Amino acid sequence: MDWLDAVRWDERGLVCAIAQDAHSGRVLMVAWMDREALALTAAQGVAHYWSRSRGRLWKKGESSGHLQTVQEIRLDCDGDVVLLQIEQMGGIACHTGRQSCLYRRLDAGRWVEVDPVLRDPSQIYRD
Amino acid sequence: MDWLDAVRWDERGLVCAIAQDAHSGRVLMVAWMDREALALTAAQGVAHYWSRSRGRLWKKGESSGHLQTVQEIRLDCDGDVVLLQIEQMGGIACHTGRQSCLYRRLDAGRWVEVDPVLRDPSQIYRD
Repeated sequence: MDWLDAVRWDERGLVCAIAQDAHSGRVLMVAWMDREALALTAAQGVAHYWSRSRGRLWKKGESSGHLQTVQEIRLDCDGDVVLLQIEQMGGIACHTGRQSCLYRRLDAGRWVEVDPVLRDPSQIYRD
Repeated sequence: MDWLDAVRWDERGLVCAIAQDAHSGRVLMVAWMDREALALTAAQGVAHYWSRSRGRLWKKGESSGHLQTVQEIRLDCDGDVVLLQIEQMGGIACHTGRQSCLYRRLDAGRWVEVDPVLRDPSQIYRD
């Protein structure tokens, strides 16, 4: 059986993908992959996702340069989550210019932004 | 605004929730939460999820005893992922008796089960 057939693709043909920093263990982002994105990620060792908002294949870092090189790919027990161990180029995974997309912490009933912006997004995405 | 309103609930009223071991940094499982599950998780400091297969609120560990005590709750940049830092009672998060649900690693085009079963599931779920 093709390894891609072991993935339980949802009704949109997507699987949830988590990118974890291979060195620090920090969860950097969560996105979605279609079959092509996962196949390319495995073949090239660089993370590809499916952008739901843009409706197209998305090579992470294609405009920012913040590519993710992939050291390991895991699948969960029921086949609907993929976990990537990655090295994050530029040290920034989030489009807000932060290291991780998980930068809001619940504190006494409100979300507090606890991580610094490392680089202004307008500097990341300029042409 | 109620902190729960900052979450971008999907069309099913659910949000993706990742449980990460607060000590080792290992991603243990990914599940879903509805509003009640997240509210209870925050209020009680014990992880609750929404079981899609059973169609009901699910206190993790309610039958196995493998409760998850929650040390931190984070929300991602677009509000559709919650990350829990947890302490896993019994050291087993997966219903297969393994520490983590992410126990299959892609290796030369096939998924290899690389983590040991720590306890026979029939021993975990007996009454």
